[in-house]
Formats: sequence, structure tokens, C-alpha cells
Amino acid sequence: MKLHGYFRSSAAYRVRIALNLKGVRAEQLSHHLRKGEQRAAAYLALNPQGLVPTLQTDQGEILIQSLAIIEWLEETCPEPPLLPKDPLRRAKVRGFSLAVACDIHPVQNLKVLARLRQLGLSEERVTEWAAWANREGLAACEKLIASEEGPFCFGAAPTIADICLVPQLGNARRFGVDVSAFPRLLQAEAAAKALAAFADAAPERQSDAE
Amino acid sequence: MKLHGYFRSSAAYRVRIALNLKGVRAEQLSHHLRKGEQRAAAYLALNPQGLVPTLQTDQGEILIQSLAIIEWLEETCPEPPLLPKDPLRRAKVRGFSLAVACDIHPVQNLKVLARLRQLGLSEERVTEWAAWANREGLAACEKLIASEEGPFCFGAAPTIADICLVPQLGNARRFGVDVSAFPRLLQAEAAAKALAAFADAAPERQSDAE
Repeated sequence: MKLHGYFRSSAAYRVRIALNLKGVRAEQLSHHLRKGEQRAAAYLALNPQGLVPTLQTDQGEILIQSLAIIEWLEETCPEPPLLPKDPLRRAKVRGFSLAVACDIHPVQNLKVLARLRQLGLSEERVTEWAAWANREGLAACEKLIASEEGPFCFGAAPTIADICLVPQLGNARRFGVDVSAFPRLLQAEAAAKALAAFADAAPERQSDAE
Repeated sequence: MKLHGYFRSSAAYRVRIALNLKGVRAEQLSHHLRKGEQRAAAYLALNPQGLVPTLQTDQGEILIQSLAIIEWLEETCPEPPLLPKDPLRRAKVRGFSLAVACDIHPVQNLKVLARLRQLGLSEERVTEWAAWANREGLAACEKLIASEEGPFCFGAAPTIADICLVPQLGNARRFGVDVSAFPRLLQAEAAAKALAAFADAAPERQSDAE
């Protein structure tokens, strides 16, 4: 199996965590997003969005979108589970995960920030935009799990929610957000980062890290 | 069951289609997004993101995020299926759906466009931003299903992919995108719109339409 990613991509980071939790090995192929390597013709043939991650299975099948890849892993390698069994609880975990993956991450990704610069926004305003997306989004996430038992987002074991949360908190800090406002999220992050599956997937531990 | 939505919200539109396809009735409660009703304290208590849709089950459970709600519907009311059975095919459908739900819709939603106006962008540039997000995103989606059999996005029956596509094409047109560049998407849209479940969910058919 091959995972096309980039050390700093939050979406690729999510898939690295999920692969580690499932104990599935994948060869890591890096595409330097800041150099635009994701827009090379050979990569676009795999992933027309020109985004990472892309997963190539041993049968040569191509999967895109981090959450679709993780749901596929969950269905094909059920242990350990990354979603609860009960449909309602699954919906809660997915709701949190999508609150990160739809409403925070894409609003502050490289492509959108580059577009803001093209529109003439100063670097300061671009950073404030990214901070805003993270601050508002994480404040909502904090409330979503306020009454959930810890230490993880949803109980005693990591789920897709934690897989989405940990990379996003990394981004929030990078953009200068005061994450101390989110104690419940930090509790989940601490529990997650104590696991090798999360620690080994961290951007700074990847071979393409700069 | 109660669905909190707004006639023009693409995400609420997705859930309306899914409910119709499943034959599940829900009372529709409208929150006027342009008037900011989604930020009323009573609504934020249900949905801390201040976004629509929110689904309240008959047991009083609260579900947020359109795709989490639709996956819950799929798990609790399996017929007719909105995802294929095969894990790989499910991943393809989810990948397409997330390409819309993560990488097009949130980049051009009301909240982001309002933020662009706050930054001093002219109405013309705000519209061009929304058109850009739709044009680039739909061009990738067109490629994702180019070799899939029709008439729907993935074969002979509608899936979550079509549920995401139809509202997004509506947005694209509203922002002036020339959708004739996407013949395969238009084929899927035509097949979907011929179904009452899609037609009845259209914004202009809702009681809160203006």
C-alpha cells in the first residue's frame, strides 16, 4: 500500500494515525505542497483534486479524501474500531469529525490562503483568517464534547474524532490560536498523543519534515 | 423527527433528499441564515457550530453535520441503500461526496463570504471567489466519475454522491459558473432531478423559500 502525503498536511496526518492504529503499513510518498508538486500531471492523474492524501492499495485502487480512506480502513480492518458500534454514537463521532474536516480545515488550507494572498491580503491578515477559522471551529468542537466522558473525545478509546482533532490543534497553534480556551479538547489531545500511533504520525517525525 | 434547516442551505438540502429517498418524514423548522437566526442562543444550544442542518430524533437526540446525519439514516433505515455494499465502492462514493462537502461547499458558504466582505472585498470579488471554489471543485468531481457508468454518479441508482452533487450544482449556477463544462455531472444531475425525492427537496419547493 502507498500513501501519498506531505508531512504538514493535516489530512495526510489523519490517515497516518489511522494506519498506525490499525497496524497497517504503507509506503510513504511525499509531495511538496509548497512547491506545488501536488499539481504535477502524474499526481493529478491519481488525484484530480490535486490534494493529499491519496491511498493506492496493493491492487492498484486509488482512494482519495482522508475520511473516505479512514472509513474504508475501518470497514476492511475492523480492529481496533475507530467508530462506536451504536449508530447514534457513530453519528456523534462523525459529526465532530466533519465539524473539523469540513468547517475548519478546508477554510484554512494552503490553497485558500494562497488565494487570499492573490487577492492582495497582507500576511498578517492571512494568518488572522486562518486563526479565525481554527478559533471559531474549535470553540464549537469544545462544546460538542463538553459532556462526553474522556479522556478521548468520545470515551475511553480513540475514534475518528481524535484523529481529526490532533492535527487540527497543531494547525491552530501554528496560526497563533490560544488553545488553552479548549480544556476538553486538550484532554483528548493529551490522551491521544500518549499513544505511539499518534506520536509516530506527527509531522515532525516524518522523513520529509523540514 | 425534526429537521432544522433553511431552504437555500446546500447541507440541509442534502438531508432533505436523503430523508425523501428513505421515505422518512421530518418536520421542517426554518432558520433564516441571512438574518442570523442560526446564531440565536436557543439554536446554538442545539448546534454549537451555528450551522444548519440539525436533526432532532423522536427520542430527542441531536445530530449535526449533513453527512453524519445521512450515514446515520443509512445505518438505521438501510433501504433503499445510499452507499454500495463493497468497501472499495463505498470509499469511491464517500471520496466524491467529501470532495464536495469539504473542499467546495465550506469555502463558499455564507460565513466565509461574509468574512471576505468584512475584509473589504467588493461584491464582484466575493462572487468570483465563490465561483472559483465551485469551478475548480466541480472540475475535479467531473474527472472523478468520468469513467463511472451512469446515469447517476456511481451507476444505476442514486448515492450520497448525487445527494452532494445536486445542491452544489445549484450553487455553482447561482455564482455564474458555466456548468456546461461538466457533462458527466449534468448527466447525473438530470437523472437525480427526475426523481421525486430530489425534486421535492429543491430549495424553491420549500415553504420558507423566498
